[in-house]
Amino acid sequence: MKKILFINPIHTDIFNHEFKKMLNNSKLQDTSVDVVSLENGKGPCHLQYHSYEAMVMPKIIQRVREAEEENYDAVIIGCFYDTALRASREISRKMVVAAPAESSLHIASTLGETISIIVSEKKCIPEMRENVRKYGFGERVVSFKSVDLKVHEFQKDLQETKRRILQASKEAIEKDGADIIVLGCTAEFGTYDEIQQELGIPVIDSGLAAFKYAEFLIEIKDKMNWTHSKLIGYQSPPEEEVQSFGILMQK
Amino acid sequence: MKKILFINPIHTDIFNHEFKKMLNNSKLQDTSVDVVSLENGKGPCHLQYHSYEAMVMPKIIQRVREAEEENYDAVIIGCFYDTALRASREISRKMVVAAPAESSLHIASTLGETISIIVSEKKCIPEMRENVRKYGFGERVVSFKSVDLKVHEFQKDLQETKRRILQASKEAIEKDGADIIVLGCTAEFGTYDEIQQELGIPVIDSGLAAFKYAEFLIEIKDKMNWTHSKLIGYQSPPEEEVQSFGILMQK
Amino acid sequence: MKKILFINPIHTDIFNHEFKKMLNNSKLQDTSVDVVSLENGKGPCHLQYHSYEAMVMPKIIQRVREAEEENYDAVIIGCFYDTALRASREISRKMVVAAPAESSLHIASTLGETISIIVSEKKCIPEMRENVRKYGFGERVVSFKSVDLKVHEFQKDLQETKRRILQASKEAIEKDGADIIVLGCTAEFGTYDEIQQELGIPVIDSGLAAFKYAEFLIEIKDKMNWTHSKLIGYQSPPEEEVQSFGILMQK
Amino acid sequence: MKKILFINPIHTDIFNHEFKKMLNNSKLQDTSVDVVSLENGKGPCHLQYHSYEAMVMPKIIQRVREAEEENYDAVIIGCFYDTALRASREISRKMVVAAPAESSLHIASTLGETISIIVSEKKCIPEMRENVRKYGFGERVVSFKSVDLKVHEFQKDLQETKRRILQASKEAIEKDGADIIVLGCTAEFGTYDEIQQELGIPVIDSGLAAFKYAEFLIEIKDKMNWTHSKLIGYQSPPEEEVQSFGILMQK
Amino acid sequence: MKKILFINPIHTDIFNHEFKKMLNNSKLQDTSVDVVSLENGKGPCHLQYHSYEAMVMPKIIQRVREAEEENYDAVIIGCFYDTALRASREISRKMVVAAPAESSLHIASTLGETISIIVSEKKCIPEMRENVRKYGFGERVVSFKSVDLKVHEFQKDLQETKRRILQASKEAIEKDGADIIVLGCTAEFGTYDEIQQELGIPVIDSGLAAFKYAEFLIEIKDKMNWTHSKLIGYQSPPEEEVQSFGILMQK
Amino acid sequence: MKKILFINPIHTDIFNHEFKKMLNNSKLQDTSVDVVSLENGKGPCHLQYHSYEAMVMPKIIQRVREAEEENYDAVIIGCFYDTALRASREISRKMVVAAPAESSLHIASTLGETISIIVSEKKCIPEMRENVRKYGFGERVVSFKSVDLKVHEFQKDLQETKRRILQASKEAIEKDGADIIVLGCTAEFGTYDEIQQELGIPVIDSGLAAFKYAEFLIEIKDKMNWTHSKLIGYQSPPEEEVQSFGILMQK
Repeated sequence: MKKILFINPIHTDIFNHEFKKMLNNSKLQDTSVDVVSLENGKGPCHLQYHSYEAMVMPKIIQRVREAEEENYDAVIIGCFYDTALRASREISRKMVVAAPAESSLHIASTLGETISIIVSEKKCIPEMRENVRKYGFGERVVSFKSVDLKVHEFQKDLQETKRRILQASKEAIEKDGADIIVLGCTAEFGTYDEIQQELGIPVIDSGLAAFKYAEFLIEIKDKMNWTHSKLIGYQSPPEEEVQSFGILMQK
Repeated sequence: MKKILFINPIHTDIFNHEFKKMLNNSKLQDTSVDVVSLENGKGPCHLQYHSYEAMVMPKIIQRVREAEEENYDAVIIGCFYDTALRASREISRKMVVAAPAESSLHIASTLGETISIIVSEKKCIPEMRENVRKYGFGERVVSFKSVDLKVHEFQKDLQETKRRILQASKEAIEKDGADIIVLGCTAEFGTYDEIQQELGIPVIDSGLAAFKYAEFLIEIKDKMNWTHSKLIGYQSPPEEEVQSFGILMQK
Repeated sequence: MKKILFINPIHTDIFNHEFKKMLNNSKLQDTSVDVVSLENGKGPCHLQYHSYEAMVMPKIIQRVREAEEENYDAVIIGCFYDTALRASREISRKMVVAAPAESSLHIASTLGETISIIVSEKKCIPEMRENVRKYGFGERVVSFKSVDLKVHEFQKDLQETKRRILQASKEAIEKDGADIIVLGCTAEFGTYDEIQQELGIPVIDSGLAAFKYAEFLIEIKDKMNWTHSKLIGYQSPPEEEVQSFGILMQK
Repeated sequence: MKKILFINPIHTDIFNHEFKKMLNNSKLQDTSVDVVSLENGKGPCHLQYHSYEAMVMPKIIQRVREAEEENYDAVIIGCFYDTALRASREISRKMVVAAPAESSLHIASTLGETISIIVSEKKCIPEMRENVRKYGFGERVVSFKSVDLKVHEFQKDLQETKRRILQASKEAIEKDGADIIVLGCTAEFGTYDEIQQELGIPVIDSGLAAFKYAEFLIEIKDKMNWTHSKLIGYQSPPEEEVQSFGILMQK
Repeated sequence: MKKILFINPIHTDIFNHEFKKMLNNSKLQDTSVDVVSLENGKGPCHLQYHSYEAMVMPKIIQRVREAEEENYDAVIIGCFYDTALRASREISRKMVVAAPAESSLHIASTLGETISIIVSEKKCIPEMRENVRKYGFGERVVSFKSVDLKVHEFQKDLQETKRRILQASKEAIEKDGADIIVLGCTAEFGTYDEIQQELGIPVIDSGLAAFKYAEFLIEIKDKMNWTHSKLIGYQSPPEEEVQSFGILMQK
Repeated sequence: MKKILFINPIHTDIFNHEFKKMLNNSKLQDTSVDVVSLENGKGPCHLQYHSYEAMVMPKIIQRVREAEEENYDAVIIGCFYDTALRASREISRKMVVAAPAESSLHIASTLGETISIIVSEKKCIPEMRENVRKYGFGERVVSFKSVDLKVHEFQKDLQETKRRILQASKEAIEKDGADIIVLGCTAEFGTYDEIQQELGIPVIDSGLAAFKYAEFLIEIKDKMNWTHSKLIGYQSPPEEEVQSFGILMQK
């Protein structure tokens, strides 16, 4: 049994239902998945801006921590910035943590050789490029393509969204030499399949990628006990300090 | 059902039985795995030397091609040099192909941050270092440690083998700042578990890593149709040419 | 007049008084500086752990935003992880933002050629190394040296602290070929001067470095109107959205 | 008091008057600046060619050395190739030395994220690209744009010069994703301000950048005694040898 | 006397005669050169696909080994993928081994600064780009240009071939900033001279480059005894093992 | 006929006689070589310091220019800093120019895989490391080893010199994994052969390397007309300007 929590780290649950349906369609038999967003109340409904990412970080940490107490085997942080990934792995003691950019890029660089990432707006590129390089894929990612749609516009007119992603992908193939496409925002969900058929090359939906990668991480933890190294960067803080600093109460 | 062929690309079957046992212990329920080595007759019994790798390449290609005809979903090339990985992905039309170095390094760089690779002899390092950089992990792999054992010595005295790997790993942790260990030869099998417990950090057996990664690649192919991009580098040769060049007859 | 706010992004004010004294000793004539930590109440007293960094991020963003309303010309985020630097530059509309690692490394790579960073514990290294590479100094920083002191131990026994930093620095010079030292934690304050005299090479206190760099950034903004580019990565979020998401009310 | 010498390392003084005016408009209150070019007599009037750079190097070294005797606190080598920068820092015993490319790039990478450099002719690019990489900014500088004007043409028709720089900058923003512009020749002076207003992003005049950075280096030397490390690369030659080799007499 | 064997590692001898003529026209006086292809019988007639490369590897190794027994001083592996270069250097005990990509890139990076490689089809680029980076020229090679001609089409209509290479080269110069061209397939022979005259910059024929570099390697071996280091990566396999594995019998 | 001028870019001729003997022992039959140093009169007798390099640059340029008028086919700049290499290639219209570091590193990276450079003093390392990276060999050069001998001490006690180089080389092999040694100062001449025999791996004398590489460059110029690209970085300055700037008269 693989119990997974997919966190949409935003203050709206409008994507959760569709996400859950999508993930359930793609899961291993013994996987159960829940999709949550951050608790209601005011807060960012998307993370396009880095100050919005900053605002939701404590809530991510607390939700990750709660997930561990609720016996989840894995959590997924559902944003292509991989917001608070290192901190989430650190606060987890037993759970594994996956995130869209990291998972998609590992998959894409096994399946293809030159990757193009289709993003919502130019604004996203600098931080994403830093992540790409940090993960080791700086030479493989040959371009970022903006489709000039805000995060909440992707699902408004899905045909237009697909049209723009398709066009950007074709440019990436012809001008940048890409042989695989990564959708650089989890809100681009519901589009990869049709575009993939049209292009004839893999188109990686990053939310799905993170979900399947989370299953994989649980599997290798269960079978071989391979999990996040707790020696240096992912070493968890001392429990007493966590308590005394009130990490878990701040909501 | 995930049907996997693990190819020990050497002219001896002495490891096959133990390998199969190990893989069966770690498989998903619906996986079936076969372990084969290259057909009997003269040929390299290990691939420490690059001229040996060269000698077995056609046999790998042919065995991969046959595997596709035998309806395998994935093949694994069981050598940490990832011998003929690109060519095997090219010759495959539907199957996915995994290999130990690529799989271990993707896993290790998700689970830890600074990797040390424990190799049999110094001789292996230059080609492996090239692969490490090619895959994008040049900054994460902080050291290669030789235990000065030939490929066929690893299984001779397993206690001594473990002792040497443990010592090399401890040095990697203390001097090189490693927080995760990769065993850089598939013949180091049967050792990771005990060393992992002793060190308290993940120790990645590269044969197992490739096997689990192969299952994962099959899974994402089955569910999302994400498979090797056939657009550029992995584009298969034209079937008529394959026939006329006698690729499949040369044994 | 250069009005600067130095934020110790932690829930304790024990360093503030000494910091203010140190900064006032080194300031330009027309600079006025305030040193604040995060509001009282529970919260991390140091940021050694990345989950602690995550916890204080919203407070940093809000404090930066308030600083702008209070007409500061610059803020400094007083932690060598440069916590929330990108987000702080984004949320600022007119102010400039400086941070210890970025400032120290720019200075050090102008004054010397091979840098060693003296850190409190090994734990810090992975995230700092990522920052070092991100800023472009991956080839110049030749080593990180841990002195095995927790953040709050640095000021406990200043003689012992200096002894350890001196020893680590000497090793960095002899074994790693460093010709300049950066103190990789703002809590190492009060030590650079004596060690610098002893070693005969520059020893960069990172809090001071950020302070002087902030003055410099204000100066070039005042004279040439050179300030953070608001075109892509540092583009500020729309004001209405900031309001509706309650960014400024969450405390 | 910050006493600065700006050396136009060319055999013509035609820029000196305007430069001095520009620098005086942007200086700190306690700064005094002199602008000199190389002594009259025959010699290169611009350094577009690397053989011209070679020809003026001894004169730069001697002028730097004299500046130290004349009690300057800093010298600036006023060419975007940063001609003889390492040697000038070496020959200086107490002064700090700044140069346009190094200073502009440090500033630009603090204020923006993706830099485009506007150069006079393609000829300049190879050496400048080497410097960019050497300083650590190879990943941040996304393009060099030539405006096809020789060094002495920039000031001939300032409107045309601005027109070309503006056009090249717009291309850099749209096609190359730049969010900050660096003017890659000190002779482009007098243009940054208007272009900056037009583009709405920082446009760094490299001569001014070096001047302000020189003030900053003096400031941190005065306050913290942070100056060029004399341990390895910038170690000064022995005085007797300097004398016996006639370094100071060759004019 | 420099005795060189140029191996066209393909199962057709149609290029051999013209190659020999070309090499003889460019040789040192005391050089003698033979051009061979792989023995007749079925097998790849070109190596565009990596599975074809894999198929011919044992034959390359064996031919290299035989060449040593026939007292050649050097062999050249005549394919721009530098197929089996490492293995060939390993199996050779005294001979030196050269290959087109490595030789051309060393020459080109001494003669020019920014290289463009003109390839037959896009298919070739991924493996070639890996080699370029492996050899250290990742920053110098600014583009790959495909002329969309299959290997055996280059010599069919030499005027059309030249026209396409010329056009691709002009694009490389204008758009990519190249100042030197490398012909990225040995089958582009017979074209460099005319294109070079037309463009006014060096155009490196990679087969010729490998030939001249082989002469050079023989020369420095003869005079200074500088030859492939046999310490680590190029260490030859033990002779008994070579025999017992039947390396030399497999044909 | 290959007419080569080897310039010892220093103001002493004490090495010239021995150099000429060494080069004549290693030359091609049709090569004639002259060895000169800079004209008498005061000036640096070695280039350990970068200000010394700066002082001799105009003399190098003028000597290179004269060499062309004297119909030399190639000049070599005999210093491992490759002083003024770019400028010398620029000022030459027909001659080729070689230099010790560039030549040795190209040779070493063809013959071995991991290079260690044995230098006179630590002082040399920063500039040499910059050159190593500039040439593309940053990943292949695994260490610099100082033998703590000044340039003019190498030839004083040749036995002691060899002893130190041998010891440094052994360390490079054992600790740094080097499989090839480069002697990082032309004044280490007369030592490579014995050390090479002792170590059993190639030891590259950099002066000899430059000489043989110069012959090679002449050869490929004569036969294929491959010579320095004059399009961008090595484009020569206009002759009238050279005259009017008095480049050739300044001595």
